[in-house]
Amino acid sequence: LCSSTRTPGGLEPLLRLCVDRYYISPGRANTERFRRGVRCSYGPLGTELRRNLLEQWWHSVSRSSAQVFGIESVSGSGDGAGAGAGAGPLRTVESELLTRLLERQELTKEQLVREALLLLQRSPAARADLLQGALEQFVPALELVNRKLPFGLAEAGPCFQPSDGSGCPAEVTQTSLVWFCSPRTSSQWLDHWTRQRLRWWRKFALSPSHFSSSEVPSEELIEAASRGVRIQYSFPWGPETLETLWSRGDAELLHTHQGVRSKLQCRDGKKSIPHVVSVTGNLDRGVMAFLSNSLQQLKREDSKQKLLQRTVLKLHPVLTPVKVALNISRGATVELRQVCEGLLQEFQEAKISAWPGYLETLPPSMEQLNAKYDEMGVLFTVVISENTLESGLLQVRSRDTTIKETMHVSEIRKFLSRYISVADTN
Amino acid sequence: LCSSTRTPGGLEPLLRLCVDRYYISPGRANTERFRRGVRCSYGPLGTELRRNLLEQWWHSVSRSSAQVFGIESVSGSGDGAGAGAGAGPLRTVESELLTRLLERQELTKEQLVREALLLLQRSPAARADLLQGALEQFVPALELVNRKLPFGLAEAGPCFQPSDGSGCPAEVTQTSLVWFCSPRTSSQWLDHWTRQRLRWWRKFALSPSHFSSSEVPSEELIEAASRGVRIQYSFPWGPETLETLWSRGDAELLHTHQGVRSKLQCRDGKKSIPHVVSVTGNLDRGVMAFLSNSLQQLKREDSKQKLLQRTVLKLHPVLTPVKVALNISRGATVELRQVCEGLLQEFQEAKISAWPGYLETLPPSMEQLNAKYDEMGVLFTVVISENTLESGLLQVRSRDTTIKETMHVSEIRKFLSRYISVADTN
Repeated sequence: LCSSTRTPGGLEPLLRLCVDRYYISPGRANTERFRRGVRCSYGPLGTELRRNLLEQWWHSVSRSSAQVFGIESVSGSGDGAGAGAGAGPLRTVESELLTRLLERQELTKEQLVREALLLLQRSPAARADLLQGALEQFVPALELVNRKLPFGLAEAGPCFQPSDGSGCPAEVTQTSLVWFCSPRTSSQWLDHWTRQRLRWWRKFALSPSHFSSSEVPSEELIEAASRGVRIQYSFPWGPETLETLWSRGDAELLHTHQGVRSKLQCRDGKKSIPHVVSVTGNLDRGVMAFLSNSLQQLKREDSKQKLLQRTVLKLHPVLTPVKVALNISRGATVELRQVCEGLLQEFQEAKISAWPGYLETLPPSMEQLNAKYDEMGVLFTVVISENTLESGLLQVRSRDTTIKETMHVSEIRKFLSRYISVADTN
Repeated sequence: LCSSTRTPGGLEPLLRLCVDRYYISPGRANTERFRRGVRCSYGPLGTELRRNLLEQWWHSVSRSSAQVFGIESVSGSGDGAGAGAGAGPLRTVESELLTRLLERQELTKEQLVREALLLLQRSPAARADLLQGALEQFVPALELVNRKLPFGLAEAGPCFQPSDGSGCPAEVTQTSLVWFCSPRTSSQWLDHWTRQRLRWWRKFALSPSHFSSSEVPSEELIEAASRGVRIQYSFPWGPETLETLWSRGDAELLHTHQGVRSKLQCRDGKKSIPHVVSVTGNLDRGVMAFLSNSLQQLKREDSKQKLLQRTVLKLHPVLTPVKVALNISRGATVELRQVCEGLLQEFQEAKISAWPGYLETLPPSMEQLNAKYDEMGVLFTVVISENTLESGLLQVRSRDTTIKETMHVSEIRKFLSRYISVADTN
């Protein structure tokens, strides 16, 4: 009766669904940003998905070892000669000041150029990546770990990618783990983190094989790196990089600290300068990958042999933005609403994100509602009816099986918590 | 025996402690940023404190009502004439492109000015605040709530504050709740959110009276607003604003959507255009306020009548970055370390942030350790000893009472969870 087909090459259905179901904001410019994997404007569901993904990333890097610390960096925050180094090619300029300067008639061309360059230099740098901030924080962190390797510094935040000459740089949300280890182990650590990261991406995937890793060919290595690995996702239009790992040696660390080796030395017998392994991801493209990976269009025949299509966003239970929708079956009495409100509060306290479907003033049919919730990726739909008031029983529909179960109102919170935590540990 | 004194005017002890105890990165420029309440470089403890504060903010605004939705906006993300409106006075410019342009000898001054202005216009805007993004997302959100008021859009993220002519803008992390309500209720909602926000700040304070709210005098009102309220913290050097609430009317919303009233109308009987109440906070200054509020210097006499000073960072249990430190009392055997590692994992799974003090190779005396942990704001210190292996008993010291208790190893996780959750609900 039921046959599943992967979404064909079509990108349009995914983009339409993401706009219609509050994942991203409407508008051509915005959907284009989304598709390119740069930061776009997210609606409530997209925001929650992004938060969940970031939370999972955070746990996976910090829980993987007691020696990973979160930081928040400002590039060039240190004092002295290191400040501003690697500040990146972008600057935040006050446009009014520059405009006013450019419009000053009395200046000669030379004066104008000199003043404009000064203004540019004084303007703060916009970060191109998070690496530099971690390299700057290496010294205090080294003290924190009693000069023992390995350890890591993790950060997530907005960065600006320079354009390729078009003058229009793009904002991306970067996740960064900078791992400091002894020189002889850096290649093993690169392999370790590649395995760990790939496993992480696949854990949340409906089709794990779409996520893959591959060694960066030597001609594409960046200057600092001796080895590199890319983790990619096969989008309908081709593979794109989600995360890049580099084994970077010690040159950048030394440069950041003006070559003062004594500050950088660790206790590993040989007083060596640590090597750096960087693991840099693009959170926005990660969101796009999981949305693309989760979209299923299922076909089935109804009783009259008419072909029906069901569109489901099968996001992983841990990632999906809405875990449960609360609805009333016909005739919203005050008592039924009170049951819903009580449940909503119970879910909120247990940090289970719930959708207040019972607030709709013109509720559509159950069929329309289920179709909408499937497209939103809502994991379970709870229906409260007159019967609930008498017997305490409610109906729970699963997004993934479409099976409806009857359950006691006192059990639903526990059931959901258990379901999500089991999915988390698998 | 014990007498408490508030930190005197001295700012230096606070800044020194924040640097020494991994709250912020060292360096004059960085501590100055921190003091000014703009985004600075945070160490591991500061990062965790900031995360906790942001999490609490998020819960308090989203849990307060089923009708607050999180968004992530990119200013000027819409299509059409509204795009770029209110984009703010800052632009992210590729400095190399501008430098190269300024250095082109063959251009006349007029050509140079024209090209530079074009480059500036093409460069993406850096947000000055999060309001515009929320106004742009009003239309899809209105559909989400079935055109029913009130509802809110919440966001947190980096923004750039224009300088006062110095050409050096600063980055701040803004929290924003944009609340849409019917015109006749906007003043009441302003009062509601003022009470709610002030209660929130005070909930986590050691000295709640240092947080206060005051009406903005009419001569200081911004153009759009009919009323405003500031929530301030009395720092040792004077009051500074943590959060500002404005009752803004409908003009900005209409302007953002080019005056198309039909798109903006709500179902409240009169088809009115909603009014906007904005609640805008500075997260970085909030972090600074709680650190300043929590620092206590306690004096007591020891048995020889020598005056001792104890410095404690009494951050609220929910906010404090390290809930528990795990240590071994003398002679770190393999078995004792295994107990610690088991507990560490148990804490991590329960999302209780723990400090692996047992990893220190040269552990200081218990007295030194307690002094250090007090300055870090560590809520409880657990000591595992040989005795733990025999009887399962360990010692737990409280930061706030300095009392040491004996507890069974199987009870500590529950004890901590309960302690934190009780502090959360009070």
